[in-house]
Amino acid sequence: MINLRNQQFAIRPTQPANALRELEQIHFLTAANQQLTSPSALLRDFYDKSWPEYTTANVVDQQLSNLMATPDLDGLAFLAQHETVSVTGFYNLALQRLGFTPGLDFQLTDPLAAMAKIQLPVADHAGNDFTLAELKQAWYLLLTTHTKTGQTFLDHLTTHGYFAPMVHDASVEKPLIFNGKSQAVFDTTQLIREVVYVESPQDTDHDGQRDLLKAEVIRPAETETGLKVPVLYTASPYNQGTNDEAGDQMMHNVNVPLEPKQPNDLTLADVTAQPDTTPIPDPRPVTTTTKTAEETFAREQSYTLNDYFLARGFAVVYAAGIGTLDSDGVRTTGDPEETTSTIAIIEWLAGNRTAFTSRAATQAIPAWWSNHAVAMTGRSYLGTLATAAATTGVEGLKTVISEAAISNWYDYYRDGGLVIAPGGFPGEDTDVLAEETFSRQLKAGDYHRIQAKWQADLAAITHGQDRKTGNYSTYWDARNYLKNVKNIKADLLLVHGLNDWNVKPRNVNNLWNAVRYLPVTKKLILHQGQHIYINAFRSIDYTDIVNLWLTHELLGVDNQAETLLPNVIIQDNVTPETWHATDDWDAPSNPTRVFNLQHDELVDETTHEPMEFATSFSDQLPVAQYQRYTKDIDAWQTALLGDKHNDMFGHRLIFKSAVLKDDLVLDGKPTVKLQVAVNQPVGMLSFQIVDYGDAKRLGVSPTPLRVSLDEGYRWREDNLREFQTTKPTPWKMITKGHRNLQNRTNAYHVDELKPNQFYDLSVTLQPTHYRLLAGHQLGLVIYATDFSMTVRGNQDLQYSIQLGASSLTIPFVEK
Amino acid sequence: MINLRNQQFAIRPTQPANALRELEQIHFLTAANQQLTSPSALLRDFYDKSWPEYTTANVVDQQLSNLMATPDLDGLAFLAQHETVSVTGFYNLALQRLGFTPGLDFQLTDPLAAMAKIQLPVADHAGNDFTLAELKQAWYLLLTTHTKTGQTFLDHLTTHGYFAPMVHDASVEKPLIFNGKSQAVFDTTQLIREVVYVESPQDTDHDGQRDLLKAEVIRPAETETGLKVPVLYTASPYNQGTNDEAGDQMMHNVNVPLEPKQPNDLTLADVTAQPDTTPIPDPRPVTTTTKTAEETFAREQSYTLNDYFLARGFAVVYAAGIGTLDSDGVRTTGDPEETTSTIAIIEWLAGNRTAFTSRAATQAIPAWWSNHAVAMTGRSYLGTLATAAATTGVEGLKTVISEAAISNWYDYYRDGGLVIAPGGFPGEDTDVLAEETFSRQLKAGDYHRIQAKWQADLAAITHGQDRKTGNYSTYWDARNYLKNVKNIKADLLLVHGLNDWNVKPRNVNNLWNAVRYLPVTKKLILHQGQHIYINAFRSIDYTDIVNLWLTHELLGVDNQAETLLPNVIIQDNVTPETWHATDDWDAPSNPTRVFNLQHDELVDETTHEPMEFATSFSDQLPVAQYQRYTKDIDAWQTALLGDKHNDMFGHRLIFKSAVLKDDLVLDGKPTVKLQVAVNQPVGMLSFQIVDYGDAKRLGVSPTPLRVSLDEGYRWREDNLREFQTTKPTPWKMITKGHRNLQNRTNAYHVDELKPNQFYDLSVTLQPTHYRLLAGHQLGLVIYATDFSMTVRGNQDLQYSIQLGASSLTIPFVEK
Repeated sequence: MINLRNQQFAIRPTQPANALRELEQIHFLTAANQQLTSPSALLRDFYDKSWPEYTTANVVDQQLSNLMATPDLDGLAFLAQHETVSVTGFYNLALQRLGFTPGLDFQLTDPLAAMAKIQLPVADHAGNDFTLAELKQAWYLLLTTHTKTGQTFLDHLTTHGYFAPMVHDASVEKPLIFNGKSQAVFDTTQLIREVVYVESPQDTDHDGQRDLLKAEVIRPAETETGLKVPVLYTASPYNQGTNDEAGDQMMHNVNVPLEPKQPNDLTLADVTAQPDTTPIPDPRPVTTTTKTAEETFAREQSYTLNDYFLARGFAVVYAAGIGTLDSDGVRTTGDPEETTSTIAIIEWLAGNRTAFTSRAATQAIPAWWSNHAVAMTGRSYLGTLATAAATTGVEGLKTVISEAAISNWYDYYRDGGLVIAPGGFPGEDTDVLAEETFSRQLKAGDYHRIQAKWQADLAAITHGQDRKTGNYSTYWDARNYLKNVKNIKADLLLVHGLNDWNVKPRNVNNLWNAVRYLPVTKKLILHQGQHIYINAFRSIDYTDIVNLWLTHELLGVDNQAETLLPNVIIQDNVTPETWHATDDWDAPSNPTRVFNLQHDELVDETTHEPMEFATSFSDQLPVAQYQRYTKDIDAWQTALLGDKHNDMFGHRLIFKSAVLKDDLVLDGKPTVKLQVAVNQPVGMLSFQIVDYGDAKRLGVSPTPLRVSLDEGYRWREDNLREFQTTKPTPWKMITKGHRNLQNRTNAYHVDELKPNQFYDLSVTLQPTHYRLLAGHQLGLVIYATDFSMTVRGNQDLQYSIQLGASSLTIPFVEK
Repeated sequence: MINLRNQQFAIRPTQPANALRELEQIHFLTAANQQLTSPSALLRDFYDKSWPEYTTANVVDQQLSNLMATPDLDGLAFLAQHETVSVTGFYNLALQRLGFTPGLDFQLTDPLAAMAKIQLPVADHAGNDFTLAELKQAWYLLLTTHTKTGQTFLDHLTTHGYFAPMVHDASVEKPLIFNGKSQAVFDTTQLIREVVYVESPQDTDHDGQRDLLKAEVIRPAETETGLKVPVLYTASPYNQGTNDEAGDQMMHNVNVPLEPKQPNDLTLADVTAQPDTTPIPDPRPVTTTTKTAEETFAREQSYTLNDYFLARGFAVVYAAGIGTLDSDGVRTTGDPEETTSTIAIIEWLAGNRTAFTSRAATQAIPAWWSNHAVAMTGRSYLGTLATAAATTGVEGLKTVISEAAISNWYDYYRDGGLVIAPGGFPGEDTDVLAEETFSRQLKAGDYHRIQAKWQADLAAITHGQDRKTGNYSTYWDARNYLKNVKNIKADLLLVHGLNDWNVKPRNVNNLWNAVRYLPVTKKLILHQGQHIYINAFRSIDYTDIVNLWLTHELLGVDNQAETLLPNVIIQDNVTPETWHATDDWDAPSNPTRVFNLQHDELVDETTHEPMEFATSFSDQLPVAQYQRYTKDIDAWQTALLGDKHNDMFGHRLIFKSAVLKDDLVLDGKPTVKLQVAVNQPVGMLSFQIVDYGDAKRLGVSPTPLRVSLDEGYRWREDNLREFQTTKPTPWKMITKGHRNLQNRTNAYHVDELKPNQFYDLSVTLQPTHYRLLAGHQLGLVIYATDFSMTVRGNQDLQYSIQLGASSLTIPFVEK
């Protein structure tokens, strides 16, 4: 038996009468088969209908004879021999249709046992046989149940052509809702693709004209005959291409020293960005309006989740924003101008802004096919812009699905008065990202005209980001969406990886905490991956969740998405394919455990008094070792957390708790308090919280399972993935944090730092949720240079810590 | 400038008059634009036509203004200002359309310099400007030229919809040939998919009825109105699913001792398989014939190369053969029954065999839409069955494209009287593969009926393969396609990886040598990968080569494919993206260099006398080391070839040549001759030829380049790949070989082996083609247990080698 658990959050409990009506709407129940009085005849009829590939009874017979209904009887004989349908017979057949194999995944003698284990729902039944009424409900439930490859059975039938006859059947209502979710009754071979140029209320390239922004629209052909559809809008600066080589060349050198900063007395007001009040040019006059575009496109850079909804009656719009190929303007990396550019598209979709059919701007083209209900989707920078848009409260934006999104650019490129790189990209910064996404550069003619202006703007970004101090400033404050959270009117579905060290978990955590009491519906999904998408996973019905959510948000269907979906879903870090529903994350009411620091040990403050004892380490490494780590960050990380007496001995401090007697579920933001001194007027500290203990752990990159999933019927495909366990490892980093010793107060106030004088420091680490198993040890590693994130100057810096004044506070939840 | 070389073998030189006619056929030249007298007006017209996305002159203007024609002039201004078209202006614009970036990939001041470097063809021109006639030829050549992402420009335009208006234009001839290759003028949204059951002349499950074999057919809708089309047929036992878990469970234990064998006096006649003369049942009577199938399918498991040809007017057929899901029969792994099953489909496609619309076999269905010209495609087992089919000379099979194919199953699972696993699959054997592909098991009802019969047959396979001796036998002789090479009538396109240690290079080498003088056209492509497909590579126009080849073979177009394509194309192992055209591989006329073995050294026999000296090694390892290697084969391989004094010291012998003064291009099969003694009456030797020298080398697994390639227009997609160089490595294994010391004569004759007595042994290693650079050393490593391929008994075996009687012979080619 394979290790497989089915967890579905988006099966909507449905009243039997409604279920029957929905079965009629999708043509499983018909006038003809409602005349049938024998359960076996009805089930046979369901089977006939469920195999759109097989056009004759002859071939269906053959296929039924290939399924086993009991240990001795095949499906054909089973349905022919009796009028009754036993519950076990029904589920033996059903499990095979769901892709499970007798003998391997379940036993024909007891299918319900396997279903309980796999967590597949079983329909109500009063006796051992399904009554006719029960059978209809059982079929309904089966259609909502996931196959072995993580699709609902109805979606599986869809990929085999079940809905094909209904696509051009005028009697079929569109959109077609089943179990609260929109179904694939739209013809993906007839989608209409058109390009429009939205006139944004800004002039970022200062050419005296409002910026025109290219948008790629894909909408169902049914809109041509009057259907108004909702829109999934993905704002992706990468969408029109990127300047990878130019970006690589701009990467900053991180092998430079940390420099002392001049103390200041800045207040929050001093670093608060003020709105830009430069007047913008008037809109272009609109003389002609058309419904017909002048430009189409062959293939957009698509998000597979959007593709899924294209088959289900949603339009999809991609736009890359100011400074990208075929648009006006310049890249600004996260500032209000970019947000204005992002929401201009929504304003057009909601009927509140002009678009033209070309950059000549001679004909206006409204989004006449739009129902004015927009959701934003996408991950990373894409999700970030969704969050940015939400914080404007723009009309028409009903919900955002922000995946792995930045909520404050300071938390992406900086931390605690330090330049802190996104994991895996040392040397990247806002200017590098601006250059990389300035895809106007990909068209040499356009670039020729804008080049000088762009180089000046880019230099201003480099100056503004200020890699010298790493301080929070007006530059960063302008790029902090958290300031505007109060404006949010859209419902929120937030998704983030607890192992995402690119967009670190603080980004979603700060947003979650900021909206906790805001009067919108908000949901949070935390997975164990790094910086990834989680659609096309087997173990969570993410696509169904999004369908339920969007059918509610954009089509206004009362499907209880708000109450049915848990507030928070967190993937278990120990047991594969397990997701927990919970009410909150990092709740203010979480209890804490405080550990004092002793020589090599984390000790419980309730049982151990603080011990007066200072310890120290030197950040400077032998040159060869230093150079090796600059080229092989994995080797550094392995040495850092590894045996205390290895090459890193004397260059970091490791404290471990006693072996845990019970599981400890960390939930929230650990805090380190300590007294620290350094031998020069400059310094920084880094921290890692570590799970010590030999164990097979979940990999943070999903494994492709070599299964293609069709997003509709003969439409685009995605690849099924799942997190799998790796070979045993001795430890795993749980979370981390960094601080400039001159930013003991906050990220903008620079404190004095006298050599060899002890200062109090309190550092809040990145938030987490982590089940630390009994038998393992909790670890705290204190070090300075983080080869994956900080500058790496290999300076002669000696750090001393007063252990008696140092502690680690761990928030946790009871399980 | 990036390291990029364009190598195209399939551009067909075309007479100017023919080029003009072809330009008319694809609608680039029209009655209207042939009236134009200015080159710039004609080029503008070509540009208008080449942008199917842009429907108005207005938008085309915009796009032209986004290209640069000179360092100062954009494309719109360039075409407007002059009647002439400068060659540099033409190619500046063209390079941008091909995806190259000014400043990065080429300079606007001298585009021809970059084109020479990248190896892009430049059209003839008498002066600095193209004449009107020259311009047409230049446009023709440009359409055949590859873009930066490895498609012809015309294929690139295809993916943007260039041919879309011609798909339903009755005046357009179909198939449409341009530059000798078939073009994508078929509607992939209207493909017809149907299932047929071919009645094969065999009864492998002995149920008294001929085996019915399921075939999935995909054909252009145009066949419905009378077009007869050729067929790409892929025989894939994996196609209908596999029993991965069951196969894994059957894997044989390889941690077992090598056992002594009883000497014998077998001759070739004794091990020659005799044809099976069991009578087969009569065919089923045919009473009704139809053109309409009863069964369709949603999504076949496809080969992307086939998808490409579906858009170009070829039908595609997939069949999995005897013993697979929805077919009759049992799996036999490579024997004549499987070949019969494979060619039954071709016989049906050629009009020589019956198929039915269902397994009830009530209605026959001919391949009435087929032009009776069939090619086989596919890799590994799929290519193997293509080779098998070719060796029958079956009518209708015009060509096979065998990629990474087995030519003799003994060379897949055995070698030199040893059980030798395919690399990466220790413990696999013909029975495991039979069980894995017996996909009738996936349908529990069908399996229920056949299970007992199957288990008996499977046991017979296990017995027949005889893992005890590893000898060649009638079992293996029945699975040796090389015996039947003389029957081949199909032209051959053979493709193999020189680093394929799954299906080892001997398989293609033996076939190539066997057909060298056969009167069919044969071509060979050797790449540096392991067991992979090579379509969708940037550096070789493999898809174009196959198009030229199939357009010739199946459509009968006289496009000179036979003479235009080199006999042999070999990828360079040093310089990335470089492929060499040559006449032969492993030619009998190749010169050789002979190295004598001295203490640690390979010395040239022409300058060094043999030296009398015996050396020895022990195969037995300390238990912990042995167990580590069984779990980590990479660690074993690293230690084996690494420092002489490492953990493997005393367990293998390493001989290295002097540092090479000049490159040495190995080509063919190295041979090791030696005198060997072993301390027990059992033993084996293994050999590796090694390139010693620190260097960045090509990786053997291609890197995805994150570029999607559409196989048609809004059709299925493939991902662009390329071999990239890895970080520096100290060595690379070039080739290897193995021999049981009791098989000194051949693979079936068992020789006596007395302990501690020296015997002469000559071992021919796997063939190769490898450029060993000056400055490197040639290495020979002699050892016994090969953790990746042999049994691993960790026996107490001591081997002694008489160096004075030992030598290494290397065939090579002059460069």
